[in-house]
Amino acid sequence: MELTGRVTIPTDLDIVPETIEILKKWGADAIRDCDGTEFPEELKGQNAKIYKTYYTTRKDNEWAKAHPEEIQQVYVMTPFYTATEESLSIPLMYGLYPAMLKPNGKDNKRWWEVIDRTTGEVISDWSYQEEGYKVTIKAKPFHAYTVSFLAFIMWDPVHMYNAVTNGWTIEPQMTFDVRQPATHEFSLKRLRSFIEEHDYVDVIRFTTFFHQFTLLFDEKAREKYVDWYGYSASVSPYILEKFEKEVGYRFRPEYIIDQGYYNGQYRVPSKEYRDFIKFQNKEVCALIKEFTDICHEYGKEAMMFLGDHWIGTEPFLDEFKASGVDAIVGSVGNGSTLRLISDIKGVKYTEGRLLPYFFPDTFYEGGDPVKEAKYNWVTARRAILRSPIDRIGYGGYLKLALKFPEFIEYVNSVCNEFRELYENAKGTTAYSLKKVAVLNCWGKMRSWGAHMVHHALYQKQNYSYAGVIESLSGAPFDVSFISFEDIKNDENLLSSFDCIINVGDQDTAHTGGLYWEDEEIITRVRAFVANGGGFIGIGEPTAHQYQGHMIQLYDVLGIEKETGFTLGYDKYNWDENEHFITSETGKAIDFGEGKKNIYALPGTKILVQRDKEVQMAVNEYYKGRGVYISGLPYSAVNNRILHRAILWATNSEDLLYTWFSSNPNAEVHAYVKNGKYAVVNNTYEPLSTTIYRGDGSSFDLDMKPNDIIWYQI
Amino acid sequence: MELTGRVTIPTDLDIVPETIEILKKWGADAIRDCDGTEFPEELKGQNAKIYKTYYTTRKDNEWAKAHPEEIQQVYVMTPFYTATEESLSIPLMYGLYPAMLKPNGKDNKRWWEVIDRTTGEVISDWSYQEEGYKVTIKAKPFHAYTVSFLAFIMWDPVHMYNAVTNGWTIEPQMTFDVRQPATHEFSLKRLRSFIEEHDYVDVIRFTTFFHQFTLLFDEKAREKYVDWYGYSASVSPYILEKFEKEVGYRFRPEYIIDQGYYNGQYRVPSKEYRDFIKFQNKEVCALIKEFTDICHEYGKEAMMFLGDHWIGTEPFLDEFKASGVDAIVGSVGNGSTLRLISDIKGVKYTEGRLLPYFFPDTFYEGGDPVKEAKYNWVTARRAILRSPIDRIGYGGYLKLALKFPEFIEYVNSVCNEFRELYENAKGTTAYSLKKVAVLNCWGKMRSWGAHMVHHALYQKQNYSYAGVIESLSGAPFDVSFISFEDIKNDENLLSSFDCIINVGDQDTAHTGGLYWEDEEIITRVRAFVANGGGFIGIGEPTAHQYQGHMIQLYDVLGIEKETGFTLGYDKYNWDENEHFITSETGKAIDFGEGKKNIYALPGTKILVQRDKEVQMAVNEYYKGRGVYISGLPYSAVNNRILHRAILWATNSEDLLYTWFSSNPNAEVHAYVKNGKYAVVNNTYEPLSTTIYRGDGSSFDLDMKPNDIIWYQI
Repeated sequence: MELTGRVTIPTDLDIVPETIEILKKWGADAIRDCDGTEFPEELKGQNAKIYKTYYTTRKDNEWAKAHPEEIQQVYVMTPFYTATEESLSIPLMYGLYPAMLKPNGKDNKRWWEVIDRTTGEVISDWSYQEEGYKVTIKAKPFHAYTVSFLAFIMWDPVHMYNAVTNGWTIEPQMTFDVRQPATHEFSLKRLRSFIEEHDYVDVIRFTTFFHQFTLLFDEKAREKYVDWYGYSASVSPYILEKFEKEVGYRFRPEYIIDQGYYNGQYRVPSKEYRDFIKFQNKEVCALIKEFTDICHEYGKEAMMFLGDHWIGTEPFLDEFKASGVDAIVGSVGNGSTLRLISDIKGVKYTEGRLLPYFFPDTFYEGGDPVKEAKYNWVTARRAILRSPIDRIGYGGYLKLALKFPEFIEYVNSVCNEFRELYENAKGTTAYSLKKVAVLNCWGKMRSWGAHMVHHALYQKQNYSYAGVIESLSGAPFDVSFISFEDIKNDENLLSSFDCIINVGDQDTAHTGGLYWEDEEIITRVRAFVANGGGFIGIGEPTAHQYQGHMIQLYDVLGIEKETGFTLGYDKYNWDENEHFITSETGKAIDFGEGKKNIYALPGTKILVQRDKEVQMAVNEYYKGRGVYISGLPYSAVNNRILHRAILWATNSEDLLYTWFSSNPNAEVHAYVKNGKYAVVNNTYEPLSTTIYRGDGSSFDLDMKPNDIIWYQI
Repeated sequence: MELTGRVTIPTDLDIVPETIEILKKWGADAIRDCDGTEFPEELKGQNAKIYKTYYTTRKDNEWAKAHPEEIQQVYVMTPFYTATEESLSIPLMYGLYPAMLKPNGKDNKRWWEVIDRTTGEVISDWSYQEEGYKVTIKAKPFHAYTVSFLAFIMWDPVHMYNAVTNGWTIEPQMTFDVRQPATHEFSLKRLRSFIEEHDYVDVIRFTTFFHQFTLLFDEKAREKYVDWYGYSASVSPYILEKFEKEVGYRFRPEYIIDQGYYNGQYRVPSKEYRDFIKFQNKEVCALIKEFTDICHEYGKEAMMFLGDHWIGTEPFLDEFKASGVDAIVGSVGNGSTLRLISDIKGVKYTEGRLLPYFFPDTFYEGGDPVKEAKYNWVTARRAILRSPIDRIGYGGYLKLALKFPEFIEYVNSVCNEFRELYENAKGTTAYSLKKVAVLNCWGKMRSWGAHMVHHALYQKQNYSYAGVIESLSGAPFDVSFISFEDIKNDENLLSSFDCIINVGDQDTAHTGGLYWEDEEIITRVRAFVANGGGFIGIGEPTAHQYQGHMIQLYDVLGIEKETGFTLGYDKYNWDENEHFITSETGKAIDFGEGKKNIYALPGTKILVQRDKEVQMAVNEYYKGRGVYISGLPYSAVNNRILHRAILWATNSEDLLYTWFSSNPNAEVHAYVKNGKYAVVNNTYEPLSTTIYRGDGSSFDLDMKPNDIIWYQI
């Protein structure tokens, strides 16, 4: 039986027959418009759902101009200014794009903060000059000052980005804040009108709801600050007063400004910031419900784009289920971003927008879109095999793609492959060897998004850690993301896991910082390992200087960091050992950025040290085990290292040859309930491997590039 | 005129005629005994001073055995033990050499401390079992505990080291504590007897006075912990009770134990530890005075060996002048250790023991002692030219050296070279281009010893910083070591300097840690630079996470460290610039360990970045300038980098061609008052250079290996 459906394609006015052809060819069952395209009415009645993009917070400058007090706002901190005299004048807009922001001087003594960063004190002796947007401070010489201020977002940052990138000379789209009373009322009506004007549409695809992630541009219109998880642009005095009522304490701008770090994901989140997210999440989801109710009233589905104005939705938190959102769609950059979509619970379906977009940067004469498509599909497929999205789709200008017949054929094979996979995996979950918990300060809320700054973008300081999350996204483990607060709130939590992973740099939210001073947390984690659990630390795990140690689980991991404080201690443990974890790879492992100054404590087994800096070590801790790795960028070989590390840490070396490929470039995923298993070649070359079934029996296999082969159990 | 004197040689019973011959050949004017040698009476009356080694705290086991309560003591902390049940038993001597230490259980509830390192709390519910030296604690499961205890030093650590290293099978020499009443009285009498029994001796050479630097051995008799500056072995209840009276607060073992870090030089010293050093220094110097008084009474000189039992003397502090010590002798490993001796004020003369010692490890058949001697001399000479010691000397078995006639000749040339140097530099100081202050938490007290753990021994974590101190030891700058407390106590202090150097890792005593939160300190340093001063930061200068910055002088240095907290900020400043500082070397500089994750702020000029990690950058700050360097191990080229950095930082590029060699392997030192200047070749190869005089005039010069050439101004 030929499977069809589960695929969305873009279209445009001038390619109606071609759209119909592709619909049939790819077995697609949904059609969407895109930025800069229009939906052709002729395509109605093609037995395909029709998606239409909807912008809740922009594309109506009339409204914005008429309600300037309800334009969206953002908290911004100026750079640090050092006074040389007793007066200091700070120009708020220095280094910011003038047309994007406009300081909101209303009640500024209430909503702004001038801080003496030399003492940490909030200063009250300052005045604001609207002319030139300047704050003048009575200063102490050689103290440094910052001003935290509210600004209206006069140009939607995504619109600005698109306009600047594509050289559009159009009127900037202003923003409006749906959370505020007049715009709230207006927006609900506006949505009704939109639906009524587009009755042929089946799915309202929201981009997204109310608050843009933090995105600022500099005076040259270059990106200045970005945080895909940032809440800075979700504020207004109206909202903040509500927040104060909810939490029962006075709001301070510093809760959002956070010394200029804006509560980036690396910061150990303060209680106030956690309160703020919780408050926003509840309010945002309740307000989304008003929008989805309207959609449903008209018989439409509400689809949410996971990006842009998605802040406050927090789809991994329980509150999201109250939003009434029917579907989530998001861009798939890799395995982690796939699971950022596919692991969301409480929606009817999820959809992954695959790459490449049909844009001229890839689809130019001489371009090779197939290569990009293969890379994207093979990367995403690992994660889809663990936790399938329900649909795939493409975006951009279909016209461009049509010029590449080989690409059209390749996508056809992807669609078929996806449908077969979905059918085989349906109603069950892939076989998991172990239950693994990634422990950080964010837990569930940042599932699969840990270490992300700007979605899946590379950062020198994070790829060695994000690689671990990427490995896990397609690995045969049942992965949870838990927080230190979770451990504190539930003393039995850890007993539901086999292995904890703590990955990142010292004193960051990823490793925990101050939380390791909490006796409940550290003793529960130690007890977990002592009772037979595994603990894998990567980078500077549990690192926080306290009571004689930098590595707080020094006893579990068997390592310390030389900060100079222990130079007086002679270190005799430098011999490298052969081990289960490195038995396939040997010592030539890519640790990415690695780590400096890590040494092993007596009794710890070093697997790899370089120039007397330990890169990998293992340690027995009562009935449990600890594994240290300095960094693990994503690769097939490192994926295998992590796989073996988890098995070793959980005393389960005997599970290695279970649904296993001897060649690390291939992986095996079993759907036992459905009696199926798949073997995938994750490379673009042919390969040979030996495949081990669940009972340990094996057979040799030669695979084509990117191959996926399905077997009956 | 042939100069003679200023040289000390070793001797032994069986080489009397040879000693006399060498005395004449080298123009030596002092003879010493050594460990394992005896002084031949025939050498009396050779018109040479006679030194004899004296041990204040050992070589009388009878006394020690008769006064066990006055054996020296040391504070030791056990390793961290994690409890798994409600009772935990900790064996105090685990990992320690059994014959060296014996726990002192007397009044242990007063003088010991059991600490729950999970909470930081001091625990009172514990008991001590003398049998097996065990402490049993009522514990909380999965809390970690340590015991801080006092132990008697049953085997002097230096004697033990010598015995173990040389395979001696002799009775361990026990220690006794001269600070305590009976031993105090006994020791003064013992010194009198010693002098009376050795009336031919001119100089009593103390090794040293009362307290050994911290030195512990493990169960295999290997070095376990060492700190050449450690005070852990300077304690006893008798002393601690005096300390309490002096400071007016209760002593806690933790003041010495310091979480097991034992107040190593990298630790930002606590007030209590600073109080303790101050107290010890006063007491020790007063007690030394009793010993030196006796020497003087008998017409002898008191010479102090700067090492072994030197703790508490603190020769760079004012208190030392009260000790009555006539002379200091110390081992010269490099330029820094030379100035550790030569910069001491308030003694009649200083003497440097040059390498190699006449020991079989160098003086074996086929050995090349000349090579080692040349290396040592050329390294030390740089520093001697800046701040001369008054004498040089050698140690070991003269008999061994006599078998190497080439060595005897080489030392002859060193003696002559030294005397000529001393004569030419006498009564003045070498020309200094600038006044430079090295700023750390220790200041004057650790002059030239900053970054030292075990005297001049290499550590991977310190050579990139110690190299800066080594460079300065022979550079044409007037160098001071100042502390943060100094800046706080004297608001005009900084005005006496041209340039501040802050070198080391984040949150260490070398860079300052918490001190940067002190508004007086940071504003005074900022004002200093703003008013035209220079600030050179090396490694992670001023690094301490506080109020939105890791690098606290981010504004002066123009750099930050990426800890993850600023990943959201786009960084556009990566271009490298040509500059005065790197104009000779280019960018191929050896930064040693370098630093990861440093980036430049907008406006900062990067000189070198590698893989988007800034290694060197410069910044203008009002009238002053900041220079950042990631690390600077000692080499001729790096010496030149530092030289240029100081001139640039102080707005004094025009001073470059002042007493200057175009070839960085040669240096020029001018003694303007004496009308002399020297050019030295610091390498073991010939070289060509252009020499610039004080007026900028120049001449070309070819130099022989190691050459020193003197000129009239």
